[in-house]
Amino acid sequence: MYDRASIDEVLDAALICHLAFADGGQPLAVPTLCARVVDIVYVHGSAASRALRILRAGAPVCLTVTLVDGLVLARSVFEHSINYRSVMILGSMHGVDDRDDKLAALKAFTEKLVPGRWAEARQPNSQELVATSILALPITEASAKIRSGPPEDADAPDGALRVWAGVLPLHTGWASPIPDPKLRSGIPLPASVQQLIAPEDTSRT
Amino acid sequence: MYDRASIDEVLDAALICHLAFADGGQPLAVPTLCARVVDIVYVHGSAASRALRILRAGAPVCLTVTLVDGLVLARSVFEHSINYRSVMILGSMHGVDDRDDKLAALKAFTEKLVPGRWAEARQPNSQELVATSILALPITEASAKIRSGPPEDADAPDGALRVWAGVLPLHTGWASPIPDPKLRSGIPLPASVQQLIAPEDTSRT
Repeated sequence: MYDRASIDEVLDAALICHLAFADGGQPLAVPTLCARVVDIVYVHGSAASRALRILRAGAPVCLTVTLVDGLVLARSVFEHSINYRSVMILGSMHGVDDRDDKLAALKAFTEKLVPGRWAEARQPNSQELVATSILALPITEASAKIRSGPPEDADAPDGALRVWAGVLPLHTGWASPIPDPKLRSGIPLPASVQQLIAPEDTSRT
Repeated sequence: MYDRASIDEVLDAALICHLAFADGGQPLAVPTLCARVVDIVYVHGSAASRALRILRAGAPVCLTVTLVDGLVLARSVFEHSINYRSVMILGSMHGVDDRDDKLAALKAFTEKLVPGRWAEARQPNSQELVATSILALPITEASAKIRSGPPEDADAPDGALRVWAGVLPLHTGWASPIPDPKLRSGIPLPASVQQLIAPEDTSRT
């Protein structure tokens, strides 16, 4: 088990989650964007989405996010593993229907993806708000599974083998932005994207 | 819908999948490594795993892999999206219990993560094989969802807005290997890892 701070860190680092729920007797794992605001994780999609309609009705759900951090290469095949962080939240969702609440959730999605983007792009109109379904899952029953660090067979008999062992970290980052081929001329890369792709602040490492 | 070649490409590019199944009345989405061999996707874990025991008994399952390729920044918040590739396989799993079949599946896992690693590391002994549960899901009912390319509001009225639009690609790669702090001296980085982290063959792009 992990504390809420660790759980929130994993939730905030993940772009997408997988929602498990039953459609009739068939379990489904459906990927979707997610955004946490304090004690709630939001997902959204088309108001016509079958998955969102099932979940809005209160069906039991499991929301899982998983980040893969690297490969763990041990001396034995058996001890090979991956370093990862995963959070699972159980419960049931409810619809977010108040106009201001919907706008706040959509702002959270947009700002999570690209901080500063909300103020740059055209914000949702009434028609778009109606076409968007937003669901909320309270973080009440949440757990984390985390594996980090080197392989664990150094002190076992396998530690005597002359086999290289260690971790191969997986790195995720942004590549160069690709402007829409139909972008009007004279529109520069916005501050939000410039900031996102800027070399990481070394004080963070 | 997509053809099998597209589905296989997504399955092979993904390190992990999420398995959706019901544990009693509670749907769960559980992350795990996966490896495809021809028409079957394998998952594995501890023989003591509750999830694997439920699935080995033939419970209905959904195996989903999702790769996030980038952010799609449109002129309007509403048209913001992500580029992604996701495959969903429905069905039920069966245990792989024959010794040679288990070894072949474990080799597929290892070679998928780090090609060449199977021959470098100590291979599983009988005790380890017994402790490992391997499940197989035939690729019979599979579908893919894929979004790629630029935002789609250039030709709508929003196309006239002076808002930057385009795609911010997400890049995933390997960082420098971290040797086990307890690695015996004089064991060089193996050929498998050297090959994996070598600059990409430009003929692939």
